[in-house]
Amino acid sequence: MNMEDLKVRGEIGHNGEDGRSPARTPPDQVKALIQKAMEAKQRAYCPYSKFRVGAALLVHDGTVFTGCNVENACYGLCLCAERNAMSTAVSEGYRSFMAIAIAGDTDDEFISACGSCRQFMSEFGLNWEVYSSKTDGSYVKSDVSELLPGAFELKLKKNNIGSHIQES
Amino acid sequence: MNMEDLKVRGEIGHNGEDGRSPARTPPDQVKALIQKAMEAKQRAYCPYSKFRVGAALLVHDGTVFTGCNVENACYGLCLCAERNAMSTAVSEGYRSFMAIAIAGDTDDEFISACGSCRQFMSEFGLNWEVYSSKTDGSYVKSDVSELLPGAFELKLKKNNIGSHIQES
Amino acid sequence: MNMEDLKVRGEIGHNGEDGRSPARTPPDQVKALIQKAMEAKQRAYCPYSKFRVGAALLVHDGTVFTGCNVENACYGLCLCAERNAMSTAVSEGYRSFMAIAIAGDTDDEFISACGSCRQFMSEFGLNWEVYSSKTDGSYVKSDVSELLPGAFELKLKKNNIGSHIQES
Amino acid sequence: MNMEDLKVRGEIGHNGEDGRSPARTPPDQVKALIQKAMEAKQRAYCPYSKFRVGAALLVHDGTVFTGCNVENACYGLCLCAERNAMSTAVSEGYRSFMAIAIAGDTDDEFISACGSCRQFMSEFGLNWEVYSSKTDGSYVKSDVSELLPGAFELKLKKNNIGSHIQES
Repeated sequence: MNMEDLKVRGEIGHNGEDGRSPARTPPDQVKALIQKAMEAKQRAYCPYSKFRVGAALLVHDGTVFTGCNVENACYGLCLCAERNAMSTAVSEGYRSFMAIAIAGDTDDEFISACGSCRQFMSEFGLNWEVYSSKTDGSYVKSDVSELLPGAFELKLKKNNIGSHIQES
Repeated sequence: MNMEDLKVRGEIGHNGEDGRSPARTPPDQVKALIQKAMEAKQRAYCPYSKFRVGAALLVHDGTVFTGCNVENACYGLCLCAERNAMSTAVSEGYRSFMAIAIAGDTDDEFISACGSCRQFMSEFGLNWEVYSSKTDGSYVKSDVSELLPGAFELKLKKNNIGSHIQES
Repeated sequence: MNMEDLKVRGEIGHNGEDGRSPARTPPDQVKALIQKAMEAKQRAYCPYSKFRVGAALLVHDGTVFTGCNVENACYGLCLCAERNAMSTAVSEGYRSFMAIAIAGDTDDEFISACGSCRQFMSEFGLNWEVYSSKTDGSYVKSDVSELLPGAFELKLKKNNIGSHIQES
Repeated sequence: MNMEDLKVRGEIGHNGEDGRSPARTPPDQVKALIQKAMEAKQRAYCPYSKFRVGAALLVHDGTVFTGCNVENACYGLCLCAERNAMSTAVSEGYRSFMAIAIAGDTDDEFISACGSCRQFMSEFGLNWEVYSSKTDGSYVKSDVSELLPGAFELKLKKNNIGSHIQES
């Protein structure tokens, strides 16, 4: 599977007509999320990569949190937009995530979450939605479980997670 | 230098009477920041360490951003409260930081920023203030430059960072 | 797909009889790799998670590099066994990887690489093999591309990668 | 304190004549370490930063482990040379470190360890030596404790650390 395969499979534009993990977020809401991700991208601090990314996270009560990438002279401390948005949401008491939209400066391909962000997403459930966009606003949908097959989880997590966490 | 040395040197409680890097943040504002850091701590997601931390960041126009630690089954992805607060501020367009307060569950020592957070702080200047607290609300002040002597900086950064600038 | 699905699909034990990404590493070599990963696990420095992991990486000329997890009081700096093995190989001048075996203390499930390690693997090609084992030595095979569908790659990478890198 | 201050204070070239943390590593050994760090630098994988770094770590029995930086398209996964060398040593069963030398491509200033590496160093004791070099082979010495004042340490670490660890 790659992002273009998702498109070929008819998952672009959320329709999911192949009967497999149809989008649960209404198209208007997806478009609004992508718009917010694009706005967040404007605030990216990326003097090293010059690669701007924004993300917008929809949580269970309809609130949206945004994030951009924040880089550091020590590259290993660079924080991706997706993790920024998720950690902001957690700081505000949210742990039940519905969907995240990602926007970059990629004209010709859907921007894909890196493995670290996929792992970070998986902490908050495997069945929520990830919308990867192009600059023209087109997008493909995937679920966290599709992006991180056979996800790594420590067992001890199970006993500690907050009541709002969506199970997967 | 360690945190207790700072206390011995009279820097506890912001007075700075040894003439060295006196606190620029008024004591009432420091107390309010620490209070916000303690509140943020309540939202920590730390099922692995069980070590709650909160941070409150004061930016140049008086706005305060908070953050808590957000952990992951893959420990290497755990995000500290301080970086969470800073990256949230950047997402909202702020890059000029005045002071950060840190609160943990440490009764008997001032909680100290880890090296990664010190490095992350240094990206936004070396002369702003870091207030490490105990659970009783007492605190010590340091500057980023004191916490990260001889800070690592890539030269290319120089051309990209503004005092308040939001780049695109 | 999860690790058990891989088993169900007949990929356990390298046979790949479903015609899909058959193992290229001979079974004896896989067993030797897993044995080395188990030995590396003994040297794990994991006072925080108590979760020991070892990895053994086979490079293009038959050399094997091993790694264990190395943790830190600042959890976000914890390094996984897989990345330890890969970075050791790079330090010795190798960038063309054939297969990696992972061993943990999991009796009842195959240990899975975290998203960060999958991302780190992808830097060195998408078509090399990942062997996840249980403590009894049984294993499942996957490829990096299966573990990180639609992998994130910066375009600029393409022009910079060393001559030994296997293309994917 | 910055790296130039260290030089001014007479710590360059290990002499420590100001009576403060004199070098314990003989000058010939320091030179050899720096030479190995420079060699390790040649193997850096840094297509993104183009900033090559090498490190050479001396452990308690005289063995030397080297490392280079290893970058990733997801910048947050970039691994510094220093951590690479340390994690390689741990994989080989060593946890008692004496000195580390760092070499970059900096002609006009001593290369400084980032905050993440300082934190990673502190896990293995605060009283061992860090030698930062220039391309001409000149260097300054510091101790981990000087580089990370008031180091952050989780208390639980104390009960878990291996027998070889040097106390500080």
